[in-house]
Amino acid sequence: MSGLVEALRRAIGDAQVLTGPDAAPYEQEQRRRWPGQALAVARPGSTAEVAAVLRLAAAHGASVVPQGGNTGLVGGGVPDATGRQLVLSLTRMNRVRGIDAANLTMTAEAGCVLQALQAAARAQGLLFPLSLAAEGSCTIGGNLATNAGGTQVLRYGNTRELCLGLEVVTAQGEVWSGLSGLRKDNTGYDLRDLFIGSEGTLGVITAATLKLYPQPVATLTALAACPSLEACVALLMRARARLGAGLTAFEVMNRLALALVARHFPQCAQPLPGAAWTVLLEQSDGESEAHARALFEGLLEAALEDGVVLDAAVAGSLAQSKALWQLRESIPQAQSAEGQNIKHDIALPVSAIPGFVATTDAALAAAFPGAALVNFGHLGDGNLHYNVQAPPGMAPAEFIARHEAAVNRIVYDAVDARGGSISAEHGIGHLKRDELAARKSPVALGLMRAVKQALDPQGLLNPGRVLGP
Amino acid sequence: MSGLVEALRRAIGDAQVLTGPDAAPYEQEQRRRWPGQALAVARPGSTAEVAAVLRLAAAHGASVVPQGGNTGLVGGGVPDATGRQLVLSLTRMNRVRGIDAANLTMTAEAGCVLQALQAAARAQGLLFPLSLAAEGSCTIGGNLATNAGGTQVLRYGNTRELCLGLEVVTAQGEVWSGLSGLRKDNTGYDLRDLFIGSEGTLGVITAATLKLYPQPVATLTALAACPSLEACVALLMRARARLGAGLTAFEVMNRLALALVARHFPQCAQPLPGAAWTVLLEQSDGESEAHARALFEGLLEAALEDGVVLDAAVAGSLAQSKALWQLRESIPQAQSAEGQNIKHDIALPVSAIPGFVATTDAALAAAFPGAALVNFGHLGDGNLHYNVQAPPGMAPAEFIARHEAAVNRIVYDAVDARGGSISAEHGIGHLKRDELAARKSPVALGLMRAVKQALDPQGLLNPGRVLGP
Repeated sequence: MSGLVEALRRAIGDAQVLTGPDAAPYEQEQRRRWPGQALAVARPGSTAEVAAVLRLAAAHGASVVPQGGNTGLVGGGVPDATGRQLVLSLTRMNRVRGIDAANLTMTAEAGCVLQALQAAARAQGLLFPLSLAAEGSCTIGGNLATNAGGTQVLRYGNTRELCLGLEVVTAQGEVWSGLSGLRKDNTGYDLRDLFIGSEGTLGVITAATLKLYPQPVATLTALAACPSLEACVALLMRARARLGAGLTAFEVMNRLALALVARHFPQCAQPLPGAAWTVLLEQSDGESEAHARALFEGLLEAALEDGVVLDAAVAGSLAQSKALWQLRESIPQAQSAEGQNIKHDIALPVSAIPGFVATTDAALAAAFPGAALVNFGHLGDGNLHYNVQAPPGMAPAEFIARHEAAVNRIVYDAVDARGGSISAEHGIGHLKRDELAARKSPVALGLMRAVKQALDPQGLLNPGRVLGP
Repeated sequence: MSGLVEALRRAIGDAQVLTGPDAAPYEQEQRRRWPGQALAVARPGSTAEVAAVLRLAAAHGASVVPQGGNTGLVGGGVPDATGRQLVLSLTRMNRVRGIDAANLTMTAEAGCVLQALQAAARAQGLLFPLSLAAEGSCTIGGNLATNAGGTQVLRYGNTRELCLGLEVVTAQGEVWSGLSGLRKDNTGYDLRDLFIGSEGTLGVITAATLKLYPQPVATLTALAACPSLEACVALLMRARARLGAGLTAFEVMNRLALALVARHFPQCAQPLPGAAWTVLLEQSDGESEAHARALFEGLLEAALEDGVVLDAAVAGSLAQSKALWQLRESIPQAQSAEGQNIKHDIALPVSAIPGFVATTDAALAAAFPGAALVNFGHLGDGNLHYNVQAPPGMAPAEFIARHEAAVNRIVYDAVDARGGSISAEHGIGHLKRDELAARKSPVALGLMRAVKQALDPQGLLNPGRVLGP
C-alpha cells in the first residue's frame, strides 16, 4: 500500500496527498461517531486527476471513500479504522463551470459548497433552490451522492430532481461525461439517477448540470396553530390546492419541540405559543408580496372558520419571516441542549402520518413511560424527524445504550407497516446499513447487489456503506 | 418452443395465449414499419401471472417483448420476424388499485390507458398531468417504459418525474414490490429510475404509484407571433419569470407548419397568420381565469412594447383555448397529408436552439435545395420535432429512400455538437438503436451493457432494443 501512496504523490502532487496529522480532519465526521484512520487523503484538482486516483486505487486493490464537505450524518464519507482506505476528497474541485441563463442551468464541480452555488445563481438573478442546514459547508457532490432533501423539496424536489446531468468517474477510472442541460433525453438507461443517491458506492461524481429557476419576487411565511395532526394534513391539502406551486414549504412542529426552543432560546419570539401542532408555511410568489399576503390570508381565514386552524400569523416583514424560520431551525439545537436523543429521519405517505404518530407515540409511551417525543419536519414531503428523548431522571446516554434498539424497532416496524422509509433524506451509509439489509425486500437487495457487482466488481468504492460486505 | 406455449396455456389459461391470426394485432405497430411474427402473445391478468410467464420464458430460453398500448414510434414493443419471440401484453392489467387523495397519489396497473387515469384522477377533483397525442390508447406501463413526455413537461416533468414507485417483474420472474407513495426515500439505489425509460429491456413494469396534483381553477391559452426564434426564447424566459409554475406549456410552430395546417385544415381558425414563429402559451391558475388573463396580458403587453412579440391573442373562452391547441395538434396530420417525411425528435439546451435551427436549416437547404423544414415542438423543454420534407417535384418516398441517412447525419451531427439528444421523448427501440451505438460515448454504452448483463444475464428481455446484440 505504501506503493500506492507514492504513486498518488506522483500523479497529483505531494501537497495533495495527506497522511498522518494532516489527514485527521478527513478521518472523522463532526460527531466523531465512527473513529476512522485513512491510508491517505487524496485531493485531486481535476476530473483527470480523480480518474488517475481511481485507476491507481484499482491497480493496488485499495478501497476508496469519496468525501465532500464531510457533513453527512450516517457515516458514509469517513474511512473505517483499518488504515487501509483511501479518502478521496473532492473539495478542490470547486469551480462553477458555467451558467446558462436562457437554459436555466448551471454546471458545477462536485466540491462546490452549496451556499456558493446558491450565491452564483443569485448573482445572475436566478435561484438554485436546494437549501439545508449544512449549506455553508456541504458540497453539491455530497448532496448528489446522498440525494439530499432540505426545506424546499415540496416545490422543487430532492437533489435528484434538480440535476439534469452528471460527470462521473467509474470504479475503473473511466470518465462518463454525462453533463447535460437537457430537460428531455431518452437515449438509453438512466445512469444519472443510478449514481445519484448511491453514496459513492457506484462511482465518483465530479460535476453536475443543475436546474435553476427564476428568483421569486416575494417570499412570505406564515405560522398556523392546529388542533391536531389531522388538521395539519387538512391544511396542507388546502394550501396545495390554493397556492399551487407557490407553496414552497410546509413544516410542522409539535408542542414539545417548540417548548424546548422556548427553554433554550428564550429570545426567539413565539407568536402562537402552546399549540398542539404548529405549521410553518412559506409561499414564493412571482407577482408581489401583497399578492402572496392576500393568498395567505384567504387560505388561513377559511381554515380558521372551519376549525382546521385555531390561530394564525402572517409575517409582516422579511425579518419576521426569518424569525419564523429561526424557530423551526432551532429545534435540533434545542434538543441537543437537552442531551443526546434517538433520532429518526422517516418518510410516510402524508395520509398515513396522523395514524402513525398516534399509534407510535402510544407504543413508545407504553414501553418507555415518560420518554419525550420531539416531532417536527417536512410534513409537505411526508418526512418527519421523529426523535425520542430519555424519560426524566434517566441519563440520555444510558437511555440510548439500553433502549435504542428497542425504540428503533417500535418506530421502524410502524414505518414499515405503513409503507414508509427509514431514511427519508439522510441516506444509509454505515449507520443504517444493517437496518436496511434486515428490512428491504430480498428482491430489491438482490437487484442492488447485481448493480453494485456490475459497476464495481472489485468492491473498492466505499465498501460496507449502503450494502454490507 | 411449442412446450413453452403449452406451459403458458396451463399457467394463465388457454384464452390468454394467442397465436396465429389472433396474435396479428400485437405483431405490428400502426405504421407497419417492422413486420413481425410472434411465437405467441401472452396476456396475463395479474402480477403473479406476469411472473409465471417470465419464469417459463426464462426456463425455455425464449425472449420476451413487453407491450402496452402498442402506440410506440420506435419499434420497441413489437416482435421481430423470427416467430420466436413471445409478446407479453399488459393490457389486461388495467386496474386502478387506489387513489390516496391526502397523499396526492394514485396506484395503477401497467395496462391502464392514460386517458382512463386522467379521468380517474379528475373524478376525485385531482389532476394526473401526463398528456400526449396517443393518450386514448397508450398505457401507463408503456409511458413509464419509454419515459414519455408530452405537452405538460414544462411544469410537471416527464413520466419519470410523475412516478414515485414501481412494481416490476424481473427477468428471472421475481416480483420487486417497489410501489411507494413517498416523496422522499433514500434507502438504497434508485431502482425505480433504472426501470423507467429502459423500454422493457431490464424488467417488466406491472404497476406504479403516480403523483397527482390539485386541479387548476382555470386554464387559459394565448398565441403570440414572434419575429424570430431568438425572440421566442426571450419570451420563454419572461414567461417563466412572470408566470412561474403557472406556465404549463410553451409550444413553438414555424411558418410552414401553420401553412400546412391552413392548407389541409382550412376550418382551423388562425388568429395570427403568417408569423415567422408562433408560440402557444398555456397557463394553469389556482385562483381564477381573470387572474390568469391579467397575468397573460401583463406579460404580452410588455413583450409587444419591446418587440419580442409582434402580435398576440389571449383565448377568450375555453372553446378558443381548445381551438388554439387544435392548431398545434393538427401539424403532424397536416404534414402526413403532404406525404411521408423524415422526422426528428430532438432536444437541445433552450439557449442553443436558435443557433441550431439557423445553421441546420442552412446546411439542409444547401444539401437538398427546396427541402421543406417543418419545425414545431415543446420549446419550453428544448424539444423540437424538426421534420424534413421532400423538395417540390420529388416523391416523398424517393426522397426518404435516397437521402434519409444523409439528412439524419446533418441533423444529428448538429445536435451532438451542441450537447443535444437524438431522442427527446420517443425512445430508442429498434429505430435509433444503431444511431445510439454510434453516437453515445463508449463509457456510457459500457455502463449500460454492464447493467443489462447484471439484470438480464440471459438477454431475454426485449433483445436488440436500445442496445444491439
